[in-house]
Amino acid sequence: MRSSNIDEQFRRPGTARVTAPLAVSMGDPAGIGPEIIAKAWARRHAEALPPFVAIGDIGAIARVWDGPVARITDLADVARAFDGALPVLTIDDAGEIVPGTPDVEGARCAIRALELGAGLVQSGAARALVTGPVSKAQLYAIGFTYPGQTEFVAERCGISRDNAVMMLAGPGLRVVPMTTHVPLADVFDLLTIELVLAKARVTARGLDRNFGIAAPRLAFAGLNPHAGESGAIGREEIDVLIPAIDQLRAEGIDARGPFAADTMFHASARADYDVAMCGYHDQALIPIKTLYFDEGVNITLGLPIVRTSPDHGTAFGIAGQDRAHPGATIAAIRMAAAAADHRAASAEAG
Amino acid sequence: MRSSNIDEQFRRPGTARVTAPLAVSMGDPAGIGPEIIAKAWARRHAEALPPFVAIGDIGAIARVWDGPVARITDLADVARAFDGALPVLTIDDAGEIVPGTPDVEGARCAIRALELGAGLVQSGAARALVTGPVSKAQLYAIGFTYPGQTEFVAERCGISRDNAVMMLAGPGLRVVPMTTHVPLADVFDLLTIELVLAKARVTARGLDRNFGIAAPRLAFAGLNPHAGESGAIGREEIDVLIPAIDQLRAEGIDARGPFAADTMFHASARADYDVAMCGYHDQALIPIKTLYFDEGVNITLGLPIVRTSPDHGTAFGIAGQDRAHPGATIAAIRMAAAAADHRAASAEAG
Repeated sequence: MRSSNIDEQFRRPGTARVTAPLAVSMGDPAGIGPEIIAKAWARRHAEALPPFVAIGDIGAIARVWDGPVARITDLADVARAFDGALPVLTIDDAGEIVPGTPDVEGARCAIRALELGAGLVQSGAARALVTGPVSKAQLYAIGFTYPGQTEFVAERCGISRDNAVMMLAGPGLRVVPMTTHVPLADVFDLLTIELVLAKARVTARGLDRNFGIAAPRLAFAGLNPHAGESGAIGREEIDVLIPAIDQLRAEGIDARGPFAADTMFHASARADYDVAMCGYHDQALIPIKTLYFDEGVNITLGLPIVRTSPDHGTAFGIAGQDRAHPGATIAAIRMAAAAADHRAASAEAG
Repeated sequence: MRSSNIDEQFRRPGTARVTAPLAVSMGDPAGIGPEIIAKAWARRHAEALPPFVAIGDIGAIARVWDGPVARITDLADVARAFDGALPVLTIDDAGEIVPGTPDVEGARCAIRALELGAGLVQSGAARALVTGPVSKAQLYAIGFTYPGQTEFVAERCGISRDNAVMMLAGPGLRVVPMTTHVPLADVFDLLTIELVLAKARVTARGLDRNFGIAAPRLAFAGLNPHAGESGAIGREEIDVLIPAIDQLRAEGIDARGPFAADTMFHASARADYDVAMCGYHDQALIPIKTLYFDEGVNITLGLPIVRTSPDHGTAFGIAGQDRAHPGATIAAIRMAAAAADHRAASAEAG
């Protein structure tokens, strides 16, 4: 641990306490969120997890897990409680929870947990935010107008959604989809030089700030087969990607490519870059989920706070059946803690 | 061996002699084709490879390999020669061969080898065709007007290119890109219900005919993120894929999906289908090359002959340096032999 008690009491504004717990929002209480958070806590010793507090309806945990739970009201109590019980900051408004059967009350609870978690991290009471999976269909039903949790958290932090970058990470690969949940046909209009520059700048800064990669290598995937073969099969490489890469290099960012996307993701190719910058959702998500289905982590770059999440959905189909794997949640907790530690160390050093 | 001498002499038309050798065209003589074919031969015992003959300039082999070579003029001599030397049916017109430096003479030689190989299989003198990698840039320079070897072979067999289906296969995954080397932006016009039906019918028949999978499970990848989320992010699933799948099911083909492409390719998802039908090049090629970079095989379905190839390019950058891996070529030879055996057995049974 880098901090002392004095550091904690007199820390500079904007520097999170290293000993503060992580805030883990449960996501939809009818999904696998409560179960995987409880299972992550159960493996806290084997996985050497730092103290965290689950945020959401305490009844959702009890419904799927019979381990010890500690009802928390002050985050200062989390570290002490963590060894013997799963600390829970409860939001008791999820109504009747039926695992596998989501409803609007659960969706409201999920958003309240998310908002509370984001606020606790912004205040410094928690040092990083890990968000459990939500149901977009349920969220839309209660009038949620954001594409996802990423954009909601970004706005709560005062950041425009274009400057919040979703990065997915597995043990041997990081990918950034520069466009996300849009029709594939819309990518050709959305993927502008300006967008590529914005995403790449945030990514380069984010890899330094959160992971300590001072000069990250950004490898751009071509949009067309074989990266367009010099314009023979598509021009987005020539019209968008190459000018953006040239500009980024002029700024001192180690931008490379564009490369043929199909040969970028095998093991030896991955050794040549720190992050693959992809044109669209599936170009980024296919390789990461093919390689690391149960351990992928989603981290939002460009925010004043650290935010990660397990890279999977609510999995309503298996909720409440003791079949969900906590691997991605454990990885998300670890990555959040490491990123928060890195930021704190940099802030102290700076 | 299923055939006797009498079978060979009086076999039914269209039934290849099981004891006939495989024809392996060298591809571009300045690429890694000659080297990987020679290396495959060197591992004939360890890999239990059936007799094959290399077709191309014998000098291209000698330039990169010092093992024994047998100059062949009659394919009936291949089986006898194969144990002691690499049989080569030579086309001595490649000119001066410099590994890594392709030229138009080499491209002409590659096409002659391809054409000869295809003819030998159609005649029954060879039982299957394996094609080495060619350089499209060099082929275009000599006026070759086909998108690739697949379309050239299809036309030589009297099959329209739309009815020739490229399938890529690794040990645990088969994929079909329903559109191939076209700009990504063109996919939206090209991917029609008719195209999907044609590709799926050929694929279903081809899996039966070449691999003995009588009722293959075809899993369709959605074109949009999350397969369009019921139209919320893209309509190609609703307008094209679902109507095509319904029609295929009405015809008795086990067509499934469309599924979110990003979660289709991890190990447990792959167990639920025999082939993934993908909308565009990278959707199919990213997972297969991420998982099986050095062992992927390209097989053309819908042809009267068996044709496979290693799923990689000429690799001019490492040609002549003894660095190329023969794994994909060995896999392509094995798959070609197995498919030819399966067709012959079916023809005899029928």
